[in-house]
Amino acid sequence: MPSVEIIAVGSELLTPERVDTNSLWLTAQLNELGFEVTAKSIIGDHRDRLTQAYRQALASADIVISTGGLGPTEDDVTRDCAAEALGVRLEHWESLWEDLKAKFARMGRPIPENNRRQALVLQGGESLANPNGTAPGQWFAREGRALILLPGPPRELKPMFSHHVMERLRPLAGSNVLVRRTLKVYGLGESAMDELLAPLYPQHPEVTVTTLFTPLDLEVHLLASGTTSELGLQKVTPFEQAVREVLGVYVYGESLQSLAEVVGQQLLAAGKTLVTAESITGGLVAQRVTEVAGSSRYFLGSFVTYSEEMKHRLLGVPEGMLAQYSAVSAPVAEAMAAGARDRSGADYALALTGYAGPDGGTEEDPVGTVYLGLAGPDVVKSKRVKFPGDRELVRSRCAQAALDWLRRSLLT
Amino acid sequence: MPSVEIIAVGSELLTPERVDTNSLWLTAQLNELGFEVTAKSIIGDHRDRLTQAYRQALASADIVISTGGLGPTEDDVTRDCAAEALGVRLEHWESLWEDLKAKFARMGRPIPENNRRQALVLQGGESLANPNGTAPGQWFAREGRALILLPGPPRELKPMFSHHVMERLRPLAGSNVLVRRTLKVYGLGESAMDELLAPLYPQHPEVTVTTLFTPLDLEVHLLASGTTSELGLQKVTPFEQAVREVLGVYVYGESLQSLAEVVGQQLLAAGKTLVTAESITGGLVAQRVTEVAGSSRYFLGSFVTYSEEMKHRLLGVPEGMLAQYSAVSAPVAEAMAAGARDRSGADYALALTGYAGPDGGTEEDPVGTVYLGLAGPDVVKSKRVKFPGDRELVRSRCAQAALDWLRRSLLT
Repeated sequence: MPSVEIIAVGSELLTPERVDTNSLWLTAQLNELGFEVTAKSIIGDHRDRLTQAYRQALASADIVISTGGLGPTEDDVTRDCAAEALGVRLEHWESLWEDLKAKFARMGRPIPENNRRQALVLQGGESLANPNGTAPGQWFAREGRALILLPGPPRELKPMFSHHVMERLRPLAGSNVLVRRTLKVYGLGESAMDELLAPLYPQHPEVTVTTLFTPLDLEVHLLASGTTSELGLQKVTPFEQAVREVLGVYVYGESLQSLAEVVGQQLLAAGKTLVTAESITGGLVAQRVTEVAGSSRYFLGSFVTYSEEMKHRLLGVPEGMLAQYSAVSAPVAEAMAAGARDRSGADYALALTGYAGPDGGTEEDPVGTVYLGLAGPDVVKSKRVKFPGDRELVRSRCAQAALDWLRRSLLT
Repeated sequence: MPSVEIIAVGSELLTPERVDTNSLWLTAQLNELGFEVTAKSIIGDHRDRLTQAYRQALASADIVISTGGLGPTEDDVTRDCAAEALGVRLEHWESLWEDLKAKFARMGRPIPENNRRQALVLQGGESLANPNGTAPGQWFAREGRALILLPGPPRELKPMFSHHVMERLRPLAGSNVLVRRTLKVYGLGESAMDELLAPLYPQHPEVTVTTLFTPLDLEVHLLASGTTSELGLQKVTPFEQAVREVLGVYVYGESLQSLAEVVGQQLLAAGKTLVTAESITGGLVAQRVTEVAGSSRYFLGSFVTYSEEMKHRLLGVPEGMLAQYSAVSAPVAEAMAAGARDRSGADYALALTGYAGPDGGTEEDPVGTVYLGLAGPDVVKSKRVKFPGDRELVRSRCAQAALDWLRRSLLT
């Protein structure tokens, strides 16, 4: 399978806050085309270092994709470094310069002399049109290898890749494509899952397995190559079935499916509606449920009762119960669920109350303790769970646990 | 200022889903110590490519930090490649092997022979203890330059960096530190902000300015170096004041402050409380407000009224009004805000109703149209806003716009 290296150019990408999201998107596209990404780098705006990086990437990989550094200023060194690494000159294209002048004229602005740089093209290369910005891209191919220069802004890069680069890459893609299947798993620890899966590996040597542990759930990635995606799938599918059998109810979905989406499908299939009553999560469960387009067909809303008074006023939780058990307790979780179901007319109500921290909590119920309540047509129940992590993690895990509890309750 | 390159090792980091968060955390630590990160790479588990990457980084930067690839399997090539790039041998440390055996004994598991690899140390290097895993780190210094090997899992890497690496790096840090100030801005387009800021740049040549455009807001990063952080601040502070003057009310906060946090501080200072009534955002505003620790002091809760019936039942929006104007309208936004304020007893109520898409909307109010309602002690008002973007972006921008509207209303 041909290899690709991605190089993002720009010192501004080397701060503690910035993530190079372009390379993630490009990787997905490239994998689908049948390329493997073998390395990626972010290089500051420094001529020597960037020229070296291009040289090394061109020596190691079949395709090199560079993003950013195509602006009109002196800091934009991508063109110069690429030319030096390839050992070719930059040529002025009068047609590009005319295009740029026309673009500026349409914006009613005079074109700065600086922008002449954007009309320079690698000798022997092609220019790629950029309808969403001033910087054109470039395609340079030699002896079955290619260097591709694209601008940094995602809204410029993505359409340019889809419209101009994909078709040019396809003939270089070799005979194999990569097929990826992803299973989403909730409720198992990483090592517990590894122990369950390890016996399967030797039976499927052609499939590469990666497990990914996120703060919310686990993912199992299965990867195989084949001359067509059907042949790749023929390797992956039996392994996928084996994983599903071994992990059972812990597998909740696949690919980009969220837990909220899966629960939504269950509710829709059963013709039932949901309401939530949230204290600790402050609306996070409702937010996840309504992220899904069309959720208004099964989701009525949420009572976000952050204060004790709101729990009493909106959900009818008795003041005596709050005083006797405290707002973080099994009886209150059940009363919140029952009250929300009753007052909204929904079929199911999920309630969440707990201590997210950093302050609060008691000796028996320290920070991270959560009571979940669930009210349905035949049952009102609660359970206590305890999560490690900071405020954000506790809230996030708690929302996930509640959704998974509902998912499992709806299975039976 | 001495330069650092970061190399993350592992093919699993080259998938479309994975982000190398270690390098972001390391960059923040390094900047504070007075190092500049000039390049970072992710290299798959491939011996030749990784050895080359180490060679190039060691030739370009003062410090090279490598993360990952220190496990016990054959795929874990970090040690071998580092030794080859440095031109030194790997030595077996009996003391490390004894430590590893003791660790496995404590877990009650036999130690695989494979793990002998983890007792190999670069000739002339030091081993760095890893209390949270089996893979020790390594420190190798020569002629004022250093190569540091750390394991990949963040919970192993972070304490090792803080306890063992920082003190060793400090003497190499040179005489300058980097000072960074970040201002958060809402309500201005990127080019509009650039036009306002451009005249300031020539007056502060020692400060580097980066503007960052996120889907929610804008950030202005000001960066300067000095022999002490006080001297760095003396360069940054006058520029910061000039930026604040020019941008005025558009600046809502600094550094990692969120808009919800700023609004929370305003409410707390005024001794007022807030409730929200959310349709389009499905609880997202409440979720952002309650992300802030201590928000229970000013936030009472939210009525997430996703269905029309819930708007009527929970907030008292008249059914006739819903029928006459539709749920997405100025009168309903105002009635939602007034109802929420009335039924919760809060001082302020924010309401949001609109079309997030992909379906829905009308000719006059297409997808992306939102009506915001605000009810306070003396006023009930509404405004119509229109956002571009997909469902997720529209919801997110809409929540941000509502919070900013409240922030500005509380300023006067």
